[in-house]
Amino acid sequence: KKNYRIAVLPGDGIGPEIMQEAVKVLTLVGEREGVTFTCEEGRIGGIAIDTDGTPLPEETLKLAKEADAVLLGAVGGPKWDQNPGHLRPETGLLGIRKGLGLFANLRPATMINSLVDASSLKPEVVSGVDLIVVRELTGGIYFGEKKRYDGPNGEVAEDQCIYHEAEIERIIRVAFDVARKRQKRVVSVDKANVLESSRLWRKVAERVGADYPDVELSHQLVDSCAMQLVRDPKQFDVIVTENMFGDILSDQAAMLTGSIGMLSSASLAAGSFGLYEPVHGSAPDIAGKGIANPLATILSVAMMLRLSLGMDKAADAVEKAVGNVLEAGHRTGDIASDRSKAIGTVEMGQLVRDEL
Amino acid sequence: KKNYRIAVLPGDGIGPEIMQEAVKVLTLVGEREGVTFTCEEGRIGGIAIDTDGTPLPEETLKLAKEADAVLLGAVGGPKWDQNPGHLRPETGLLGIRKGLGLFANLRPATMINSLVDASSLKPEVVSGVDLIVVRELTGGIYFGEKKRYDGPNGEVAEDQCIYHEAEIERIIRVAFDVARKRQKRVVSVDKANVLESSRLWRKVAERVGADYPDVELSHQLVDSCAMQLVRDPKQFDVIVTENMFGDILSDQAAMLTGSIGMLSSASLAAGSFGLYEPVHGSAPDIAGKGIANPLATILSVAMMLRLSLGMDKAADAVEKAVGNVLEAGHRTGDIASDRSKAIGTVEMGQLVRDEL
Ligand SMILES: CC(C)[C@H](C(=O)O)[C@@H](O)C(=O)O
Ligand SMILES: CC(C)[C@H](C(=O)O)[C@@H](O)C(=O)O
Repeated sequence: KKNYRIAVLPGDGIGPEIMQEAVKVLTLVGEREGVTFTCEEGRIGGIAIDTDGTPLPEETLKLAKEADAVLLGAVGGPKWDQNPGHLRPETGLLGIRKGLGLFANLRPATMINSLVDASSLKPEVVSGVDLIVVRELTGGIYFGEKKRYDGPNGEVAEDQCIYHEAEIERIIRVAFDVARKRQKRVVSVDKANVLESSRLWRKVAERVGADYPDVELSHQLVDSCAMQLVRDPKQFDVIVTENMFGDILSDQAAMLTGSIGMLSSASLAAGSFGLYEPVHGSAPDIAGKGIANPLATILSVAMMLRLSLGMDKAADAVEKAVGNVLEAGHRTGDIASDRSKAIGTVEMGQLVRDEL
Repeated sequence: KKNYRIAVLPGDGIGPEIMQEAVKVLTLVGEREGVTFTCEEGRIGGIAIDTDGTPLPEETLKLAKEADAVLLGAVGGPKWDQNPGHLRPETGLLGIRKGLGLFANLRPATMINSLVDASSLKPEVVSGVDLIVVRELTGGIYFGEKKRYDGPNGEVAEDQCIYHEAEIERIIRVAFDVARKRQKRVVSVDKANVLESSRLWRKVAERVGADYPDVELSHQLVDSCAMQLVRDPKQFDVIVTENMFGDILSDQAAMLTGSIGMLSSASLAAGSFGLYEPVHGSAPDIAGKGIANPLATILSVAMMLRLSLGMDKAADAVEKAVGNVLEAGHRTGDIASDRSKAIGTVEMGQLVRDEL
């Protein structure tokens, strides 16, 4: 009997509540497929700061490294917002990305038809949106050298944005590989009219693109892309871009759907290893109330089954179950048009398992 | 009789066509107000590359420096897109910003009620949107040191993002001063959870904010802001941010209105000197056809009258004339719901002058 080790990192805020439902779904999938998932919990983010004095304890990184895949809830909260950099929950997130070599962040923004009304955009603009942002996750200005010093006119701060050709090449390849399984259109986003790193980015995208004659490659400047995402998001299939631009554009794209409580993401290393997490944050304002939407985390499980464990059919089944529950009209508060009929976290998780 | 010197830089693509209409409006304003505007033309962008071998001839910079204000059309086009950096039209734009010390870019995104339908967002989400992005324009990663060299794994490219306290302070002050004349709410946008320059930015924003107890200051991370602009743009009054983030967010905000052919911008130096230009680009695909929308350039004239020349009443009159023409149902192709009834550039300019 096959056995997979899954590192489960619930994190802060609503993290533990939504993760519980995701793990129950995973367990059920295991029973149905005759596979054992050994879920081992680790601490990350604020809870780890409180317990271990660091947002990413060695133990957690080790646990994650030894696992076949990682499920993450969410990190952060007002309690740690004033902390110095090394004691902030986000630092744990950046640390685990770097520590596990998770250089490719896949952020799908798919409009679920029954939720079109939740979008702030017109139905005809968003219905059918099905794009994915492929974001470089371990390079660029996030990880470049940082400086702070006193100059003649007060303090000076510096961030270095640095990209190596090999870093660009591997993420561009991921994007093209993803596009091959989709509509075969890649838009590479940069600011090549101003930035040197973008000029190298574009050159590498062109070179790598030549290896994929079946996939169409075009380029957009980041400011144009931010406009086009608003004007006509349906034009996009795969968007590939560097870390900082990807942070902004993937969040913008997610919000176009109006239901970020539904969106999951994958952060992949070379090979099949990956970390899976919902796009939404730790939502401290509703933590502990049992009303958070567990679907993005459950859909993260589906992504994990597909991308890290090769269990495509099980992944399809989970996604289908979620789709059916929504079509039947069940909603948590964040996506409900009539809040009085909204159901809770546990109930939503149970409905998905019933469908499975 | 008062005499103002205006440097007029039509630039490329539709630049000359739309500028012609703007200058005619300016001349009419002069006649009505008993003021002389001496308009002197200069070359910038692609046309300057072709004629002078550089996107920003010394002569143009001198002309601009000696003027009371600058009107710019648009620069760029496919003809120069493959040129090396120093021979690209955008380089002329960056050069004139730096050369004239235009550190404060004001980018209003105002929803004109009669054009609500042009937006891709729902009417209830965008009607009433009235925000302004105050973008730092001469610092940050745009102007930091750039490097390109060979490393062990191929080429390496670097861009340095650097901010001095004094640079941050002056743009934050502009934002607060602008907010005082509006709804008194400033959202400062940064990525303080990751970038050192953002941490300095936030610190300075807090310090300067204390001098404006009548204005509310809050902070948003750039990724959140990109989401909030989609979800609920009406929440914003003044957004202030650094150069790169401002580039992205101001274009995103502009597109929310669905009619970027209507939006103008100001780039200000210390004192009252400024450069005024439409937000849209040079639109090479429609250049020379006489169908471009001149209203954003005409509204740039209004901004110039108000911000650089202190002619508030004349500015109001121009804006009102534009509003009346739109209310009467006149539309250029870019904002027409029925394209067969669209009017041309010259006709639109004439209608505005008739209203004046
Ligand atoms: C928390 C933060 C450091 C992180 C990022 O910017 O990468 C987050 O916004 C994300 O997109 O996962
Ligand atoms: C052309 C380009 C250099 C410029 C910028 O990024 O500043 C443009 O996008 C703008 O916003 O004015």
